[in-house]
Amino acid sequence: MTLIQEKAQQAIAILKELEIDVWLTFVRETSGVRDPVLDLLIGPNDLTWQSALIFTRHGDRIAIVGNLEKDAVARLGIFDDILGYDNAISNLLRTTLARLNPDRIAVNTSQNNVHADGLTHAMYEILRGYLADTPYAERLVSAEPVINALRGRKTPEELARIRRAIEITDEIYQKTFAFLKVGMTEIEVGAYMQKLAREYGVGLAWSAENCPAVNSGPGSPIGHSGPTDIKVERGHILHFDFGVKYEGYCSDIQRVGYVLREGETEAPPEVQRGFITIRTAIEKARAAMKAGATGNSIDTIAREVITDAGYPEYPYALGHQMGRVAHDGGALLGPLWEKYGDAPKQRLEIGQVFTIEPGLAVAGYGYIGLEEDVVITENGAEYFTAPQREIVLIK
Amino acid sequence: MTLIQEKAQQAIAILKELEIDVWLTFVRETSGVRDPVLDLLIGPNDLTWQSALIFTRHGDRIAIVGNLEKDAVARLGIFDDILGYDNAISNLLRTTLARLNPDRIAVNTSQNNVHADGLTHAMYEILRGYLADTPYAERLVSAEPVINALRGRKTPEELARIRRAIEITDEIYQKTFAFLKVGMTEIEVGAYMQKLAREYGVGLAWSAENCPAVNSGPGSPIGHSGPTDIKVERGHILHFDFGVKYEGYCSDIQRVGYVLREGETEAPPEVQRGFITIRTAIEKARAAMKAGATGNSIDTIAREVITDAGYPEYPYALGHQMGRVAHDGGALLGPLWEKYGDAPKQRLEIGQVFTIEPGLAVAGYGYIGLEEDVVITENGAEYFTAPQREIVLIK
Repeated sequence: MTLIQEKAQQAIAILKELEIDVWLTFVRETSGVRDPVLDLLIGPNDLTWQSALIFTRHGDRIAIVGNLEKDAVARLGIFDDILGYDNAISNLLRTTLARLNPDRIAVNTSQNNVHADGLTHAMYEILRGYLADTPYAERLVSAEPVINALRGRKTPEELARIRRAIEITDEIYQKTFAFLKVGMTEIEVGAYMQKLAREYGVGLAWSAENCPAVNSGPGSPIGHSGPTDIKVERGHILHFDFGVKYEGYCSDIQRVGYVLREGETEAPPEVQRGFITIRTAIEKARAAMKAGATGNSIDTIAREVITDAGYPEYPYALGHQMGRVAHDGGALLGPLWEKYGDAPKQRLEIGQVFTIEPGLAVAGYGYIGLEEDVVITENGAEYFTAPQREIVLIK
Repeated sequence: MTLIQEKAQQAIAILKELEIDVWLTFVRETSGVRDPVLDLLIGPNDLTWQSALIFTRHGDRIAIVGNLEKDAVARLGIFDDILGYDNAISNLLRTTLARLNPDRIAVNTSQNNVHADGLTHAMYEILRGYLADTPYAERLVSAEPVINALRGRKTPEELARIRRAIEITDEIYQKTFAFLKVGMTEIEVGAYMQKLAREYGVGLAWSAENCPAVNSGPGSPIGHSGPTDIKVERGHILHFDFGVKYEGYCSDIQRVGYVLREGETEAPPEVQRGFITIRTAIEKARAAMKAGATGNSIDTIAREVITDAGYPEYPYALGHQMGRVAHDGGALLGPLWEKYGDAPKQRLEIGQVFTIEPGLAVAGYGYIGLEEDVVITENGAEYFTAPQREIVLIK
């Protein structure tokens, strides 16, 4: 069974569980605007003309697509019923929905989860227009719960791909710490990591401009900005944020080193204290993560470790889900801030993969951020790989 | 000046021309759902948190983004004013709009052009919510005319990139016709073309599954489906649809050959007649294309050449715009069918790049489709490269 066939089966089970009659993915020209859920439904393929992909809780799998794309869709082995059209989809869509007569039609719109939000405003209006004289226009609901479950609950195959992405990232970090030398620029170090990713035959987990982020010392801009001409110098904290994409699945890991000054054999106390604080926050958060906990409760635990130690709180969420994209949606380990919507109130589920990534600055030295990837199991959250327990010392 | 700096200048000129006060691109987590206009505004970069990119007819260029992304946005050299936030964008957005006090705020929603339709339904609702107690919620209009002009009117740099993509595609076709042999499968021929693209260091213009399309003989499925195990045989029409992406800009070209049978020195009369009909339709359409003509009027000219010759009309549009994507939006050389919305009614403009791609089947031989790329100039439509004037004979 292919991965998308696995996900199609899972989708129908989720519709049953959530008692949603019909899930309708309504798209067009997906090379232009791509509903992110398509990766799970049709893989890397595109659909050109207005297309409706319909799954029902009773197990129907129906695609209504342009006639010129029927063959390509048939080859996926996902849909039992493939209806084609040349000029207009509206009649086929109405007829199909009338036959299914659903009480609720879930469509891909979500204020909380961008990855459940592939329906554009105009496509929503077009759909409402097509259904104007039917009872169905008023039966549209958000597919957010369906998509959150489908994206969040990883199948064994999905977990295997994530695990491999993480292994490769780990190896790239080891090679990079062995490679880097005082005097190199952030850009040189970043370019080396991208070269290693190419050699492994993997993609980057996010935009090449800032994957990796490399920050050497206190003067380097933190955040989603790429490496600069700043040179690695003695007395710098060296911070990385990097991930790769292996067969469509991501890793996302932060690591930290310290460049020893002449005569030093370990990092200065304030750097060590910052590192231990971050490490403690991560481990306390991980230990508390289990199915049923809200994401917000986990964020609070880590945030308090940081603030209780006297550092300012990190101005972002503790962690996000990870899968086909580095920042996947649904339940978020985050504070209850406007920009996060309801995502931090959602509850953790078995099979979800999260990052845990608090951070803090150490004045005069640089930024300490660690990021570990974990999976929620029946026994709580487990690291995929050994977390960073000590700061890497660079001679 | 970088290409995105060129496009930012052009955007402000277009706002002046269209008398639109403010153009607001409102996005989040663009690695998940990416508004296609971002390629023109910030290049390949992504924005993580809710972000507002604002251009005004008076020349303001304002970005409101998460604090962690301020540096990366500043480095683009596009925005004069970059406002950052940690928790909530809404207040900054309201304050900025109140200061600009626009009569009309164009947002990226369009029923006609998918490439002007990057605003999701939920983001539209979030925006309306943020503006609920202001006069601005009721001043939102579609940015379709702005984006159509911005995407359609190619700058000299954009045309140069398209020209290079087309040259490379031409060369790949020549090498492929020299390479292919009777007995090869469509898949083998397609794989060779993709290998050549990699050697040229270019991407594919659309999804790798069906770029190229390769159709050998009457039994090969036409449309957006990939190459199959069907073998190239004597007496087959061999049809290709292929394009590459060079520095972010696409080509999209169809070519046709005929595999000679023992004793044949040219294609059979019905194949030649089909070819000449398609070639005539293209040339008549091209000759009629000029600024101010509607796309529909051009489609009609080509469609009549085909049907007057006794063939069934092609079940798609004659041609589409091309640029950052192979199927770019805005004015379309198309029939007035529901699925095309108003796009065929729009008028051609100088600087737009179109494909012209009618097709027909010849019973027993296969599919003839040619696709030429042209640019609208002051003197009408010009081919980028020599069009295919004779069917390629394969021995």
